[in-house]
Amino acid sequence: MRIALPDITIQEVAPRDGLQIEQEWVETSDKIRLINSLSAIGFSRIEVSSFVSPTVVPSLRDATEVFAGIARRPGTIYTALIPNRRGAELALTARADELNFVMSASEAHNRANMNMTHARSLASLAEIAKSAHEAGALVNATVATAFGCPFEGGQPLEKVLEIVRRYLNLGADGITLADTTGMANPKQVSQLVSETLKLIPADKLTLHFHNTRGLGLVNAMAAYDVGARRFDAALGGLGGCPFAPGATGNVCTEDFVNLCDEIGLTTGLELQRLIELSRWLPKLVGHEVSGQIAKAGRPLDLHPLPERLQSSA
Amino acid sequence: MRIALPDITIQEVAPRDGLQIEQEWVETSDKIRLINSLSAIGFSRIEVSSFVSPTVVPSLRDATEVFAGIARRPGTIYTALIPNRRGAELALTARADELNFVMSASEAHNRANMNMTHARSLASLAEIAKSAHEAGALVNATVATAFGCPFEGGQPLEKVLEIVRRYLNLGADGITLADTTGMANPKQVSQLVSETLKLIPADKLTLHFHNTRGLGLVNAMAAYDVGARRFDAALGGLGGCPFAPGATGNVCTEDFVNLCDEIGLTTGLELQRLIELSRWLPKLVGHEVSGQIAKAGRPLDLHPLPERLQSSA
Repeated sequence: MRIALPDITIQEVAPRDGLQIEQEWVETSDKIRLINSLSAIGFSRIEVSSFVSPTVVPSLRDATEVFAGIARRPGTIYTALIPNRRGAELALTARADELNFVMSASEAHNRANMNMTHARSLASLAEIAKSAHEAGALVNATVATAFGCPFEGGQPLEKVLEIVRRYLNLGADGITLADTTGMANPKQVSQLVSETLKLIPADKLTLHFHNTRGLGLVNAMAAYDVGARRFDAALGGLGGCPFAPGATGNVCTEDFVNLCDEIGLTTGLELQRLIELSRWLPKLVGHEVSGQIAKAGRPLDLHPLPERLQSSA
Repeated sequence: MRIALPDITIQEVAPRDGLQIEQEWVETSDKIRLINSLSAIGFSRIEVSSFVSPTVVPSLRDATEVFAGIARRPGTIYTALIPNRRGAELALTARADELNFVMSASEAHNRANMNMTHARSLASLAEIAKSAHEAGALVNATVATAFGCPFEGGQPLEKVLEIVRRYLNLGADGITLADTTGMANPKQVSQLVSETLKLIPADKLTLHFHNTRGLGLVNAMAAYDVGARRFDAALGGLGGCPFAPGATGNVCTEDFVNLCDEIGLTTGLELQRLIELSRWLPKLVGHEVSGQIAKAGRPLDLHPLPERLQSSA
């Protein structure tokens, strides 16, 4: 049986990119419950956790336990973010279906975030891809800060494209362009996505936008308009940026699904179930989250007239 | 001397649509200070207050005092929202440069919000336009709930266009299509704006979007793409919707200006000054506001590298 692809594929990253910045510890059992609930809603990909230094990202130090505890739905790819070979080994041992390798376009950001030069990051990717493929896993390679770096500023388009070419040559099965700190604008998105789609087909390219400056969905629409079809998003708009306290995080999954529903693009995801799950998040993380549709309801969830205007029966 | 029009004209509505929903009283002197600061930044239009029943909107019951207290910058049009003849009289007495007449496309919403039928609202507009023009004031006419009503749901396109035609016949100088409770989507926006621009030129049409479901800027871009050039927005994204507690309000002025700056569209407004003024708002209204750019900073406000990575001089 073949299942028709939706018009837009939304991949859920709340368990990883959403939770990684949370200051309060989220119990392993709650993380597993979140992921199992997301699986039940039918996401094709869920980024489960990351295998990075527990000193640097203590909130995800239970990655192995989370991978061991989740129920795996056939048809969902369970991804682990990894920065290096050591992370890749741990992720494969945990039976991740896909490794999401990350390097920043910006050298400064790659050193700050991964403590590695480009040369060292890229050298590790070839080996990571080999071990992953031997284990039957996929490798996605992410260009972080592809739309701008908080230390260096704008990143030249040709530099980002050259990294994409290197990734493909080194064995990446898929590519993500990530707007790590929410610096992208729709004009830049149109240009970079158009150029990248000359190198890889749309079903291999993911756009990962943050809503740090309120432009997450604007950028997603700009990417869609030039042919992008795969997007990361986080339930409730979880996530954030260390340089923007109080600002919003990832593009919000249910807000994005609502947008798609409203303009007639299929996602294969049921909005009402996302809203219900999202309404649990403030309890899970201990604070309000930035997603809007879970607060406002769907556009056509109508309200009763004020009583004074209701005709008596 | 002729001044070139900006690519996009952003009209500031925070003093009216932003403050009207606030529960805590904002002092008249603070309202005046806000409006004077907005004037100094150079907005071409500022919606100062509304002349409506003080029982229904107690937060704006000082409309006359606010109009009397502001310093009027030559080149700025100071607007008053009015629902009826009585409001129009008060607004003209207060020397409003423009009356913004409002009627909802939805009969149910018009009754709930204005306590009037369409017939009664429209009958008043002809007289309002006459008195305004005699006094040398402009009349803008707003179609509230043009993109959907929280009681009735979707509004037929032809019904909205018919109201626009009636408004023009009754003497309106400008038209606003308002997404009063944030129900619009970009597909619908493209259609309605395209059709409306067959009835009036772009410099007479304002789009008023709310960000209730996270789509404010997406809808603004969709409207721009089919020719709209005038938009309402509120500093800090002030405002809200009684049906969506905790949800965001109007499109945020400084987030919109940042978007325009980033894609090379002129607004004539200086982003840094807007950000500085917006950072005063949480103190003014006693709570956080939803605008993002005031929290995150401009995309190219760069950050220093972590100390461990800075080379010693």
